[in-house]
Amino acid sequence: MLGGRVRLLQPKDGYRAGTDPVVLAAAVAARPGQSVLELGCGAGPGLCCLGARVPGLRLSGLELQPGYADLARQNLAHNGLDGEIWTGNLSDPPPELKAQSFDHVFANPPYFEAGKRISADESGREIALAGETPLADWVACAARRLKPRGYATFIQRAERLPDLIVAMQGRLGALELLPLLPREGRPPRLILLRGRKEGRAPFRFHAGVVIHAGDRHEEPGNRYTARFEAIMIQAAPLEFPAGRI
Amino acid sequence: MLGGRVRLLQPKDGYRAGTDPVVLAAAVAARPGQSVLELGCGAGPGLCCLGARVPGLRLSGLELQPGYADLARQNLAHNGLDGEIWTGNLSDPPPELKAQSFDHVFANPPYFEAGKRISADESGREIALAGETPLADWVACAARRLKPRGYATFIQRAERLPDLIVAMQGRLGALELLPLLPREGRPPRLILLRGRKEGRAPFRFHAGVVIHAGDRHEEPGNRYTARFEAIMIQAAPLEFPAGRI
Repeated sequence: MLGGRVRLLQPKDGYRAGTDPVVLAAAVAARPGQSVLELGCGAGPGLCCLGARVPGLRLSGLELQPGYADLARQNLAHNGLDGEIWTGNLSDPPPELKAQSFDHVFANPPYFEAGKRISADESGREIALAGETPLADWVACAARRLKPRGYATFIQRAERLPDLIVAMQGRLGALELLPLLPREGRPPRLILLRGRKEGRAPFRFHAGVVIHAGDRHEEPGNRYTARFEAIMIQAAPLEFPAGRI
Repeated sequence: MLGGRVRLLQPKDGYRAGTDPVVLAAAVAARPGQSVLELGCGAGPGLCCLGARVPGLRLSGLELQPGYADLARQNLAHNGLDGEIWTGNLSDPPPELKAQSFDHVFANPPYFEAGKRISADESGREIALAGETPLADWVACAARRLKPRGYATFIQRAERLPDLIVAMQGRLGALELLPLLPREGRPPRLILLRGRKEGRAPFRFHAGVVIHAGDRHEEPGNRYTARFEAIMIQAAPLEFPAGRI
């Protein structure tokens, strides 16, 4: 990942990280020296990518499944990163984790609600794709673990934007939406949504970040746009536009 | 409006309709013979545009300010349209209106919350731009006046998308978002959001409709895109994409 900056051990048969945790990690606006927590960190691709891009972070992860948590610990070590991986449920995190707060919390919650899709064969993959934990619990846990003025950043299927917005009500403010467009002029399949603890600024709806070059009229291809290639290969940040539009 | 198909009497000094009611009316997917209600219809630009585009509709409007309601009645008549304009508050509509239900309800609620912007000099314009009525009341009234499976269509500032989504929770389903982009690649300033009474389909986030031709790198100009020109001048519908993406 990130043009070879990150190398990852992943389960042979279970859930394997695609581009999503890389994009999510690129969108976390952490500065050197800050503390970050990933909820549902899996085998650690997001934490490793964020740690590779921003030096000197205090990296923490929470993962329900012990096998993935072990892999995350190994992956941090193999990539020369320090960090702490907690095994536990985000609806009732380990007490030591509950005693801490973070500058940034981020998560890639399961994209499907449990029971609403065809079951995968492998149970670890199933839990990673279709969690039992409601989206509201992910948001509530993120909000509780944030320092005042800290940011929570989520990546999610576009279809669940309303659920995510409703979950954020009263917990996070200053919401910002950044759609990820497969191509210019196409609807997003994934969105980034971030909110700020105690944030008061109005909602901002940013222009979409385009993943693949070429418009819908051209021959389909998988060539990335220059911006997206920089994010995926050169470890560039995916910055939410600053200031007013 | 609509290339001369609609001619409108408007107050000399008060709120005057821009492109927004034309776009909104184009987005109402009414078929000939159906019943439609506009909440806060003002001087009637939306109803007149919708009536000019789709023949044989039963047109109804609700307007708080009697002067605007009178203008709406005159404007319907001047444009050769039948319709009924009710003067009243959408938080407590006239009993005769409460006895009716509609295939489509649509609204362009005030874009600013009362007290959150600099006052305009003219009170009618002020009420039209910065309403006292919470967005949730607009949505609740729309949902109550819809027939089962009927559609509510709203146009609103992009900044208030979360408020609108939260207001729709539990009242309308099958939400669909259609952003209006000033230019390709730019963030939307306005959004169309529609929901269906008793709708169960997942949320859909559509590709934006682009208003002005030329990308952000070119000389700014006010030339419409072909699609938007068709909507504004040739009375084309603004269709939400059908089926699954």
